[in-house]
Amino acid sequence: MAGNSFGKLFKLTTFGESHGAAIGGVIDGCPPGLELDFDAIQNELDRRKPGQSEIVTQRKEPDTVEFLSGIFEGKTTGTPIGFNIRNTNQKSKDYAHIKDVYRPSHADYTYDKKYGIRDYRGGGRSSARETACRVVAGAIAKQLLASVSINAYTSSVGDIFLEKPYQALDFSKTESNIVRCPDPEVAEKMIQRIKIIRKEGDTIGGTITCVLQNVPVGLGEPVFDKLHADLGKAMLSINAVKGFEYGSGFCGAKMKGSEHNDLFNQDGTTKTNLSGGIQGGISNGMDIYFRVAFKPVATVIQKQDALDNAGNIVEMQGKGRHDPCVVPRAIPIVEAMAALVLADYYLLNKMYN
Amino acid sequence: MAGNSFGKLFKLTTFGESHGAAIGGVIDGCPPGLELDFDAIQNELDRRKPGQSEIVTQRKEPDTVEFLSGIFEGKTTGTPIGFNIRNTNQKSKDYAHIKDVYRPSHADYTYDKKYGIRDYRGGGRSSARETACRVVAGAIAKQLLASVSINAYTSSVGDIFLEKPYQALDFSKTESNIVRCPDPEVAEKMIQRIKIIRKEGDTIGGTITCVLQNVPVGLGEPVFDKLHADLGKAMLSINAVKGFEYGSGFCGAKMKGSEHNDLFNQDGTTKTNLSGGIQGGISNGMDIYFRVAFKPVATVIQKQDALDNAGNIVEMQGKGRHDPCVVPRAIPIVEAMAALVLADYYLLNKMYN
Amino acid sequence: MAGNSFGKLFKLTTFGESHGAAIGGVIDGCPPGLELDFDAIQNELDRRKPGQSEIVTQRKEPDTVEFLSGIFEGKTTGTPIGFNIRNTNQKSKDYAHIKDVYRPSHADYTYDKKYGIRDYRGGGRSSARETACRVVAGAIAKQLLASVSINAYTSSVGDIFLEKPYQALDFSKTESNIVRCPDPEVAEKMIQRIKIIRKEGDTIGGTITCVLQNVPVGLGEPVFDKLHADLGKAMLSINAVKGFEYGSGFCGAKMKGSEHNDLFNQDGTTKTNLSGGIQGGISNGMDIYFRVAFKPVATVIQKQDALDNAGNIVEMQGKGRHDPCVVPRAIPIVEAMAALVLADYYLLNKMYN
Amino acid sequence: MAGNSFGKLFKLTTFGESHGAAIGGVIDGCPPGLELDFDAIQNELDRRKPGQSEIVTQRKEPDTVEFLSGIFEGKTTGTPIGFNIRNTNQKSKDYAHIKDVYRPSHADYTYDKKYGIRDYRGGGRSSARETACRVVAGAIAKQLLASVSINAYTSSVGDIFLEKPYQALDFSKTESNIVRCPDPEVAEKMIQRIKIIRKEGDTIGGTITCVLQNVPVGLGEPVFDKLHADLGKAMLSINAVKGFEYGSGFCGAKMKGSEHNDLFNQDGTTKTNLSGGIQGGISNGMDIYFRVAFKPVATVIQKQDALDNAGNIVEMQGKGRHDPCVVPRAIPIVEAMAALVLADYYLLNKMYN
Repeated sequence: MAGNSFGKLFKLTTFGESHGAAIGGVIDGCPPGLELDFDAIQNELDRRKPGQSEIVTQRKEPDTVEFLSGIFEGKTTGTPIGFNIRNTNQKSKDYAHIKDVYRPSHADYTYDKKYGIRDYRGGGRSSARETACRVVAGAIAKQLLASVSINAYTSSVGDIFLEKPYQALDFSKTESNIVRCPDPEVAEKMIQRIKIIRKEGDTIGGTITCVLQNVPVGLGEPVFDKLHADLGKAMLSINAVKGFEYGSGFCGAKMKGSEHNDLFNQDGTTKTNLSGGIQGGISNGMDIYFRVAFKPVATVIQKQDALDNAGNIVEMQGKGRHDPCVVPRAIPIVEAMAALVLADYYLLNKMYN
Repeated sequence: MAGNSFGKLFKLTTFGESHGAAIGGVIDGCPPGLELDFDAIQNELDRRKPGQSEIVTQRKEPDTVEFLSGIFEGKTTGTPIGFNIRNTNQKSKDYAHIKDVYRPSHADYTYDKKYGIRDYRGGGRSSARETACRVVAGAIAKQLLASVSINAYTSSVGDIFLEKPYQALDFSKTESNIVRCPDPEVAEKMIQRIKIIRKEGDTIGGTITCVLQNVPVGLGEPVFDKLHADLGKAMLSINAVKGFEYGSGFCGAKMKGSEHNDLFNQDGTTKTNLSGGIQGGISNGMDIYFRVAFKPVATVIQKQDALDNAGNIVEMQGKGRHDPCVVPRAIPIVEAMAALVLADYYLLNKMYN
Repeated sequence: MAGNSFGKLFKLTTFGESHGAAIGGVIDGCPPGLELDFDAIQNELDRRKPGQSEIVTQRKEPDTVEFLSGIFEGKTTGTPIGFNIRNTNQKSKDYAHIKDVYRPSHADYTYDKKYGIRDYRGGGRSSARETACRVVAGAIAKQLLASVSINAYTSSVGDIFLEKPYQALDFSKTESNIVRCPDPEVAEKMIQRIKIIRKEGDTIGGTITCVLQNVPVGLGEPVFDKLHADLGKAMLSINAVKGFEYGSGFCGAKMKGSEHNDLFNQDGTTKTNLSGGIQGGISNGMDIYFRVAFKPVATVIQKQDALDNAGNIVEMQGKGRHDPCVVPRAIPIVEAMAALVLADYYLLNKMYN
Repeated sequence: MAGNSFGKLFKLTTFGESHGAAIGGVIDGCPPGLELDFDAIQNELDRRKPGQSEIVTQRKEPDTVEFLSGIFEGKTTGTPIGFNIRNTNQKSKDYAHIKDVYRPSHADYTYDKKYGIRDYRGGGRSSARETACRVVAGAIAKQLLASVSINAYTSSVGDIFLEKPYQALDFSKTESNIVRCPDPEVAEKMIQRIKIIRKEGDTIGGTITCVLQNVPVGLGEPVFDKLHADLGKAMLSINAVKGFEYGSGFCGAKMKGSEHNDLFNQDGTTKTNLSGGIQGGISNGMDIYFRVAFKPVATVIQKQDALDNAGNIVEMQGKGRHDPCVVPRAIPIVEAMAALVLADYYLLNKMYN
């Protein structure tokens, strides 16, 4: 219980089901005096919203955020920021067929076993719709951390990989295509792949890489609240995520120490950065980069066996309007969660000064 | 600050530096009436202790735990369990040469920048010696969760991989060899590899796979405190960890939904288990399995450039007695952290009944 | 920062300013399957709302709660319950005269010094309007704790005291008069006193006594989270509260041990109850009772000196519609906070079973 | 469960039973670089220790603290400070007679009902011996808050009251007498009273007043974590405390607003200070003062009925060496808890700068 808050000092609490009256949240701990750019907030929501392109779900929902408190004359006041996003495009009838059915690889079964009751419409609380609230809070965290650059992008779709390291990329191109891959050629391949998958009524997984630049030295609180441990938890809390690695990651596990060590320059920077900008759980001022694995969306528009709550195997077919690949819309969510982690540690770190 | 506690209901707080008087901790929230098997606790410490075999550091330290409270006539009382492990084999002189030097890919630099002061001896607080305290608490958590099986093993050393899936392994063989790989043939290759690396004065990375069986349905608290998110944070908080994946993990990101979905049996189990025993952040009763990537130990017995705190590049050579590969001794740490996560959610879950 | 949440397992987070768009909150951790009585919730809000009688503020505000999530087909689902109460009767112009002025014994000065910015209208976040959100959450907590009786009542207004002990009172009469004192004769004196005070343009303090009956044995988590310590914090967090005592309270500090000890009956109950139902921070099954002191409302309709933010002393006169005595409307707030504390410990206590 | 930690940023976790091997704790979050005065820490322990004068328990225990970590070359390092105080004067045999007996107004009964098992020797975890750990942490917090003055003193014993307001007292005289009342004449009366009570084999209650001066403006985090709410919780968590009031306290509840309001001076200070230095839960820079009520110690050296765990009423007589009045030894505990609250908010407040 009570697992719907994230962060300690810059703390987000979210609520809301996919097909209830509204989703929303409370941001507690945002410092006072921050002049908010509301267009920037809405822009982040627009990057996440359904219906934005031909490779995402065609459901239309405006995702307009209403702020209810904590802001006065355009500035944060240091008091909690409450906000709502109304659910306007719920077609609950779309879900009548799953009322008593557990879809494979969805959370229907586990929610039912844990809580004994669930709002089955659109996945209820387990729907990724909840992440819109994270995007709102993350957009404010980004404004708090104005000097930090946070750039996520699609680094693979299925077996199409963007092989170039992030240093060779121009992040300003990420938004230039609908799959959000900053390399236009690879982006085109990814888009074609998703279109084919969609036509097949299937879905496909992918990975997102995220790069955090100009992060101050000293963020992270060992031994348990290491910066990368909280980044990892943040990413793993996003729907459909199956893995997280930072710096050299799983590749680093194949290396020798003599290859892996990052030698220093005289100014404290390092010649290489296999560490991924974090040493001993504390940021060292180098770029932080990490990669997040997303499984394919479980809802496929093909016939599948499901289980009903009477213990019968029943045939069902995905209805509704679903994403063939979650990755393009997850980019702003990854960035938002990274911003929330950094905001928390940024405030914590003020105690050392 | 205050990042030295883990867990909410079954909560561990640790303290201690590598070369201080003692390390230790407090376990708060262990239920009363648990009859403790002290030999089992010491056995876990022995699995982690230095000097246990020829492929780990040759430092000798008994790692004997003294319990100070919370236990009466052999049983837990529900009050906090305080414990100490005295540091008996500190050779602080070994570290005089790094007093003013930041070793590459260690936490020397970041601790100094964050705190402005550090106990440089043996890495101080950033030393993996701290994990002995986690092993103590994890050993108690395991006893609380007597019906759950927790088995970790070495699944790779450098590029030597144990390819068999966990279902094909006999976990009772894990402790039969010094690298803790349950396949004797692969184990032998790993051991030889580490011996060569050691002779070279180098180090090597590896991965650990961990399998949790008989976990009750319903553990995990969405949307932020998903079971796998906390397992991920727990693992990423261990020294040298660079990555975490569960279920299909990064491979799942290449798959299609039609391949990835786990179809149900009538009893609620699933025919496949790419989900890794967790759906929507909640355990579904199937086996939970995950993989953790460890980088190579940063201390190599070769000459390397380091940075001193006056901004000079200085040549240094690793001294002291270090592990050529961290993985064999990290097995009980991975299991301990998994046990701590499960114990916490096991207690939380009691609220639903 | 981040001080707007209360509770650990049954956790309330509130937001909202007196004259913003809305106040509201999120209840995280309410167990699933609780069938809610919405009339009972609204009834609690009505007990707190302005304009309910001639001895409270004449401001009219319906205080209608809208639930946005966490409830499905009338029952809680175990997911967070988000709710809003729209502000409908804000007369912001009433407050233009205090934009740059710090009223004596209000929070204007401290909010300005702490945050550097404040929503001055109606006291902003420091307004007792926020407590309506506590009443909503408390009303749900009461329903969770159906077997526990929670009864607060006015035990003094100025120097008019209800001398009878709570055992001699009929709580069903508390709501029979507008001052909420269960003794009709004393109630009448209190009402007359408040009417006179009001006519004088002045305000007056008072105390509330609260009795918790049928509380299970075993609630409270020593050594810091003692049941009475959290009840005390809960009460002291209510606007205008200056003191808290339970059981024998301050009178007990004058007594001898031989007088004060509560001797046992054979069934574990005690012959006297100076302990107030709590021993060592843990409920013992006897009635819990405590008393809360409220200062007089700071806004008086008399001329007073105030300070402006340029450092000038300026004369001002209270405008707007204020309570001559806060106690009658604070009864449901005291009960709500008591219910929140009990709900939290009730859930925590499930771990022992 | 897990109720043995206090504070968020400057966090103390304690462990230990009265007659176990040791008590101790971990202070997590103390900023680095603080040069510790160890004599000052021991001095605070000596103010609390048994056997210090003829009006306290004659039990002798040196209460020597051993620091195990978090301190390097005399300075804090920002890592957790672990410490032990060995129990050296346990006479467990003294307690064999209460093994199966619940003493009236002790925590024996509630601990047994809650946990089902208890270390009955000397009260086990419920013993005030645990507060020695709070004194250690509080002594360090005091050093962190070097510019703040924290002065507690005995303001009543039974019905002997120190009537003078704190402004008329010379705190330097508090330690000049064994009852710790800064007015020598009143102190003498209190001492005589305690001596008589002691001779009678009885005990007596009392109150402590505490004054916090030079507290920075802005400490406290509304709406729940108001500064006085956390001070109240801190005090109520001390053994034997029955009440807390600050500023005008319970007397304020009898007053009119026109009498109670604190009018401003031009510099933001106030002419009176009935508010007690806190407005809206935030310190305003004026003196903070509060009063704490302690019940008489439950152990009397007179025959009393008790209950055994088979449901029989049995006659018992207090043995062992107990305090006739807890107040003189509780002075450093009250100061320590106040220091812990202030340290936490002092660190939190750094986020606003």
